[in-house]
Amino acid sequence: MEISEYFPIWNRLTEAERTMLTEHSFIKQIPAGTVIRDGHSDCMGLLLLRSGQLRAYIASEEGREITLYRLLERDICLFSASCMFRSLQFDLSVAAEKDSEVWVIPLDVYQSLTESSVAVANYTNELMGSRFSEVMWLIEQIMWKSLDKRLAAFLLEESGLENSTVLKCTHEQIASHLGTAREVVTRLLRYFRSEGLVRLSRGSIEIVDEKGIMRLAE
Amino acid sequence: MEISEYFPIWNRLTEAERTMLTEHSFIKQIPAGTVIRDGHSDCMGLLLLRSGQLRAYIASEEGREITLYRLLERDICLFSASCMFRSLQFDLSVAAEKDSEVWVIPLDVYQSLTESSVAVANYTNELMGSRFSEVMWLIEQIMWKSLDKRLAAFLLEESGLENSTVLKCTHEQIASHLGTAREVVTRLLRYFRSEGLVRLSRGSIEIVDEKGIMRLAE
Repeated sequence: MEISEYFPIWNRLTEAERTMLTEHSFIKQIPAGTVIRDGHSDCMGLLLLRSGQLRAYIASEEGREITLYRLLERDICLFSASCMFRSLQFDLSVAAEKDSEVWVIPLDVYQSLTESSVAVANYTNELMGSRFSEVMWLIEQIMWKSLDKRLAAFLLEESGLENSTVLKCTHEQIASHLGTAREVVTRLLRYFRSEGLVRLSRGSIEIVDEKGIMRLAE
Repeated sequence: MEISEYFPIWNRLTEAERTMLTEHSFIKQIPAGTVIRDGHSDCMGLLLLRSGQLRAYIASEEGREITLYRLLERDICLFSASCMFRSLQFDLSVAAEKDSEVWVIPLDVYQSLTESSVAVANYTNELMGSRFSEVMWLIEQIMWKSLDKRLAAFLLEESGLENSTVLKCTHEQIASHLGTAREVVTRLLRYFRSEGLVRLSRGSIEIVDEKGIMRLAE
């Protein structure tokens, strides 16, 4: 598949802009586990996800983490080009959760496009608005929702992403998604087990009462 | 003062764009306490703050609140024009904390400018990036900082805004800024008092050891 298939506003670009994108963009393989961006470093350009799964998160000085959002096929990673925006003053990390393949639009190419094309500039605004909305959703979750509901919602999300009711993830990993301590996740999962919602075994969690977990998440 | 003095990228507008802004923008007085935007309603356009103080916040279904950021003189309220951006999918409220005076750039005027001017489109991006950064700062505070440190930082911020060490605010109001319960604020303030940091009286809090509060906030 060509980049013309992935770049969302291709039909609003001029012929010259299309040529620039086609000539300078390239495909990159990112193995699962790779940290693409660590805090504020590594400003390689805009990434268009062809396949795989990326995770955007923040980390505390003590190494605690919380997931901000996930990027899936056809999503665009804006923060890999964040140095374009002087006003974006925060550290955000991005890592590949699965083997991923991305189109890379190099930073200077994307920057030149946003400076010449009002369509690209406004599209970039929409992109930033989407990420902003995901972070606002997260704040609302953190502020107004109890952790058992957030854990239930996370299990459902994972189950959807993996297309399986058996989730291969450690309590530590879940804690890093939710921004809490491993012990808290373990305690809540044991409570879920006692309620007949999940079955626990070493390194995996099986959802046995999906409807019950849905009720809890709401 | 004319709008040309307040609109940040005036020198990057064409003559026609300047005329459009000058002819259609108007000044509006907003008395302290006015809710300018309640959740997702009221999309009046871009507001440029001439004087006063606005507060952006979110509220839970139960009526709990947390302050996202404040807008002061020369700041721009982007969310009063949020319906321009399809991707901004969250409720955010804005209220005047002090008597305020704003330039209103009506929605259709600002929308037309962002569609024609790459400079305005990119400036809007910078604006959204600034607000995004403030919200990310808040997430980091909520996630990694204890509430006593956040309360200390809030008292210092208020003291700076009011240019006074005597703060006229109730425990309830502080709770709504920090997104917590009134009882928690009262308990923490009593602890601050026992440490000799503040003096408490009905409806006001006096900072008596500013350096001590600064040490706590860090």
